Amino acid sequence: MEVGISLEKAKKLISKNIFVLSSELINLSDANGRILSKSLISKVNDPRFDNSAMDGWAVIEEDCNLNEEIKLVIKGEIQAGTENPPAIKSGEAYKITTGAPIPVGANAIVIREDSRVEGNNVIIYGPARKSYIRIKGENLSLGAKAISKGTQMSASTISLAATMGYDEIEVYRKPTIGVISTGDELVMPNSKINDWQIYESNSFGIAALIEQMGGTPIRYGIVTDSINQLRETLDKASRECDAIITTGGVSMGDWDIVRKIMEKEGEIIFWKIKIRPGGPPIFGNWKNKPIFGLPGNPVSSHLVFSMVVCPWFSSIYGISEYESPNLGKKVWVKLRNDVSGAQGKLCMRRIEITSEDEGLFATTHTHQGSGNIHSMVVHNGVTLLPPDKDGKKGEIIEAFWFN
Amino acid sequence: MEVGISLEKAKKLISKNIFVLSSELINLSDANGRILSKSLISKVNDPRFDNSAMDGWAVIEEDCNLNEEIKLVIKGEIQAGTENPPAIKSGEAYKITTGAPIPVGANAIVIREDSRVEGNNVIIYGPARKSYIRIKGENLSLGAKAISKGTQMSASTISLAATMGYDEIEVYRKPTIGVISTGDELVMPNSKINDWQIYESNSFGIAALIEQMGGTPIRYGIVTDSINQLRETLDKASRECDAIITTGGVSMGDWDIVRKIMEKEGEIIFWKIKIRPGGPPIFGNWKNKPIFGLPGNPVSSHLVFSMVVCPWFSSIYGISEYESPNLGKKVWVKLRNDVSGAQGKLCMRRIEITSEDEGLFATTHTHQGSGNIHSMVVHNGVTLLPPDKDGKKGEIIEAFWFN
Repeated sequence: MEVGISLEKAKKLISKNIFVLSSELINLSDANGRILSKSLISKVNDPRFDNSAMDGWAVIEEDCNLNEEIKLVIKGEIQAGTENPPAIKSGEAYKITTGAPIPVGANAIVIREDSRVEGNNVIIYGPARKSYIRIKGENLSLGAKAISKGTQMSASTISLAATMGYDEIEVYRKPTIGVISTGDELVMPNSKINDWQIYESNSFGIAALIEQMGGTPIRYGIVTDSINQLRETLDKASRECDAIITTGGVSMGDWDIVRKIMEKEGEIIFWKIKIRPGGPPIFGNWKNKPIFGLPGNPVSSHLVFSMVVCPWFSSIYGISEYESPNLGKKVWVKLRNDVSGAQGKLCMRRIEITSEDEGLFATTHTHQGSGNIHSMVVHNGVTLLPPDKDGKKGEIIEAFWFN
Repeated sequence: MEVGISLEKAKKLISKNIFVLSSELINLSDANGRILSKSLISKVNDPRFDNSAMDGWAVIEEDCNLNEEIKLVIKGEIQAGTENPPAIKSGEAYKITTGAPIPVGANAIVIREDSRVEGNNVIIYGPARKSYIRIKGENLSLGAKAISKGTQMSASTISLAATMGYDEIEVYRKPTIGVISTGDELVMPNSKINDWQIYESNSFGIAALIEQMGGTPIRYGIVTDSINQLRETLDKASRECDAIITTGGVSMGDWDIVRKIMEKEGEIIFWKIKIRPGGPPIFGNWKNKPIFGLPGNPVSSHLVFSMVVCPWFSSIYGISEYESPNLGKKVWVKLRNDVSGAQGKLCMRRIEITSEDEGLFATTHTHQGSGNIHSMVVHNGVTLLPPDKDGKKGEIIEAFWFN
């Protein structure tokens, strides 16, 4: 068990404790947000055949002299979907529509706006352009690996998969993640609440983050501070899920039951990471299932998920990079305020990032307490201030910009 | 009917052709990605009571002199969830855990690391800090409007809603959008394909974009270039959906059947927008349902969706701003290449945006044809070059950065 390690070290330890997810074949129309488990190789050339990029006339470029009007004989029309395009001879033109196959022998297109029809002839008074022909395979060639394993499918990759001939794709089975909230002070939202209690919120936010990472959350409600109830719930979750996330109870207090039970009955791989907020997370195994013990403060649990649990998802999806593109982007920002860092810890202050012509700027608005989940709503990013480093107004630092 | 209008004009016309979506009450655990139809007012103060931000000792600040060690009498322990916190007198300390209520009369916290226990006493040798007490309501006060109508719910807003006491929220019913692809050249992916045909891909990508915007796509497959089949399909979609999106068949060619049927039997509000790619979209009504006729090229249909259909979603969700935060961010980027603009048109060249300490940079990689959906996969953004404006290497221009 390691205690008080750097974020980098934590990610390294996490990436060694993964498992192989099985795959399933799904319809492409159900693919949005799913993670590809097998790279997609194009089954076609794109374009599949030489075709027109414009509505106009397919011609032989050498026929067309741009200094004067040219008269060509109209031999017919070719529309998208035409079978076996005809051949063209010098002095001839075919009316053609966008996407239609090019007549054999034609090598240029004149756009419709640069022409007029006179009986059986077309009069051309604009350029004949070879670049208006899309050449077979110029976008993508048959057999090319176009979408890599580990990609989270979205509109453009789904379109590309269809273009390449896929109506089904192989994706990872969604990992199921058990979510358990701990704390005597917690009651469910909208239930009767006493003065010294608060509404449980972490399990709702963490479940949404799990969905965003392509997993399925399974919620086990609130465990009040009883070791026996916690053990039962952990056992149930370890039987039913691929991994477990708890919130609360990981600090050094006597009532921090997640830490206590993990020390006695589980396996702790590390405890405490040098980050603020979110210092005391636990990572380990409970009955051979990975378990993340996130802190109870809502900002801490959210940020530890983003910085520590997301890289774990990346690892099980077989993506080499640690940062998750699904939650946001690592960027450089110029500070509009002084922002204090943290002694010996990577510091994640909430910031609002805006784009201006001079670059990205960061401003802090509200109280930065780790209990203040409102600060995650009114800001859209966090600083990534290195340990022992304050941020000065005007300075350029790294930050994470949430989607 | 207006022809060849600016993007701004198009958005204005679209925002006048909206309808009111009804609302539904859903469980907070189903809220991820849904659009709030009623602003959420906090039912609580956050924090609900003064509580400790640290594990340590609740004390009276005036008791603690930092120049020497202080001995205080331990009166008891207070953990999170403790009912009716006791009162404290001068010379006393209560052991306290993060989130626990502050004893009546205490006004500061000494962290555990700055203390040692000797019998019934605690010896304090670090600062007693008022800032380690979280004051009732300092994050959010009872009755404050914390999440606005029109917000697409995500992890942090869902956590905040729970914190504020909501287990159910009111969201807009998901608008159902019919998706129809047109074109004689289209066959479904993985079916038998002839040389002159291509796989239909637009409906898959557009469906994913609709999901991303919080709608439910209903797919009506491919209509080959027959006016009668198109009329039947449009009629069916207009009965079953809130709006219709077609792809293909909107250009000036004789076989552009969407434009043709809309001219004769529908109502066209505008045709053609001054953007490239994606110039020829139609917007109008079919049997009293809004219809977007997107171009058939996959890049064009994707970008017209982002620039024209997304603002329509924003309008029906009652959000004033036109740009959609769900698909990406409008940013300023510095060009690494010369990028040619378009005569009289807003030009959206595909770019790869990267963040460096000197700002955001944009690079173009591949062939920019509007048929090349692969260009949307290898890039992550588009330029927003104003009409008649080329982009020069080193110049800073506006762009759209996809999530």
